[in-house]
Amino acid sequence: MDLFEKTIGTEHIFEGQIIKVRKDTVELPNGGTSTREIVEHPGGVAVVALDEEDNVYVVRQYRHPFEAIIMEIPAGKLDHHKEDPFGCCVRELKEETGLSANKFDYLGAFMLSPGFCREYIHIYLARELTAGDACLDPDEFLEVEKIPLSRLTDMIMNNEIEDAKTVMGILKTNELLRREQLK
Amino acid sequence: MDLFEKTIGTEHIFEGQIIKVRKDTVELPNGGTSTREIVEHPGGVAVVALDEEDNVYVVRQYRHPFEAIIMEIPAGKLDHHKEDPFGCCVRELKEETGLSANKFDYLGAFMLSPGFCREYIHIYLARELTAGDACLDPDEFLEVEKIPLSRLTDMIMNNEIEDAKTVMGILKTNELLRREQLK
Repeated sequence: MDLFEKTIGTEHIFEGQIIKVRKDTVELPNGGTSTREIVEHPGGVAVVALDEEDNVYVVRQYRHPFEAIIMEIPAGKLDHHKEDPFGCCVRELKEETGLSANKFDYLGAFMLSPGFCREYIHIYLARELTAGDACLDPDEFLEVEKIPLSRLTDMIMNNEIEDAKTVMGILKTNELLRREQLK
Repeated sequence: MDLFEKTIGTEHIFEGQIIKVRKDTVELPNGGTSTREIVEHPGGVAVVALDEEDNVYVVRQYRHPFEAIIMEIPAGKLDHHKEDPFGCCVRELKEETGLSANKFDYLGAFMLSPGFCREYIHIYLARELTAGDACLDPDEFLEVEKIPLSRLTDMIMNNEIEDAKTVMGILKTNELLRREQLK
């Protein structure tokens, strides 16, 4: 079966500082037409920073869409679509927690809402950490905390952690550590 | 530290069929102001349908934002903000795969992009499956496939699966099965 859709028209709706919104008209596999509302976003990075005692650094910050303070692994937006994700990861980890890391593993790139949003997030595991001073942007407000990896995993299984990048980062880290131990 | 932001203005940008976009002006914890671009979305559900031989049902479909065919667990949008997620899960599983299930576990609700998007996805694990006829919407085109859970897990660890709800659903299912076996 041919599943592809062909774009036959584009209406630009909004160009913001972070997102762009457009509405495409597409030709469906059966020859009919439909519209697709698309959000463009530069994408971002997130990082599981794991210390020698198996603690993970998390940040708490206010997230306006949910009007709530949410616990997440450190993360940030790419400055633009072509920024190197690894460089962004090193920068965001330092800005938000003050940490540098000597060892990184790539945990993958993830589409968060592929139905309407062209946003990718790249997640890294950072180990062999060195503490330093955080250097937040002047309009960034957050609190840093260290939580044992096993406790974070229990919180995920108890549905106490709802942030997708944090769930993916922690569960992929657990699976990666299991596989490293089997080697 | 007080992390909250107070909304002092709202500009409505776009009201589409799926998403709404607005721009809020907020007062920051330090007294300054900033703007927040917010996408509203009704939210959705996704389901890990696991058969007696530990195979998982996945669907392949074209996703316009990435102009690519993507493999995902079955999923769908809530009809509106107040639709019951579990009812939506049962309906979407039947529509996309023809399956009914006798046993469901709730794997949680997840914020996909809490920085700018008010979208929640609810994920369920469905077991004790019964086959039946799929009944796709007339403008829905997808292919269904069964893949062993262990193979999907390997694909996730090899960064071959990029869809966030699929990664979260499969890794939480693995952890839930491990914990069930320890009981």
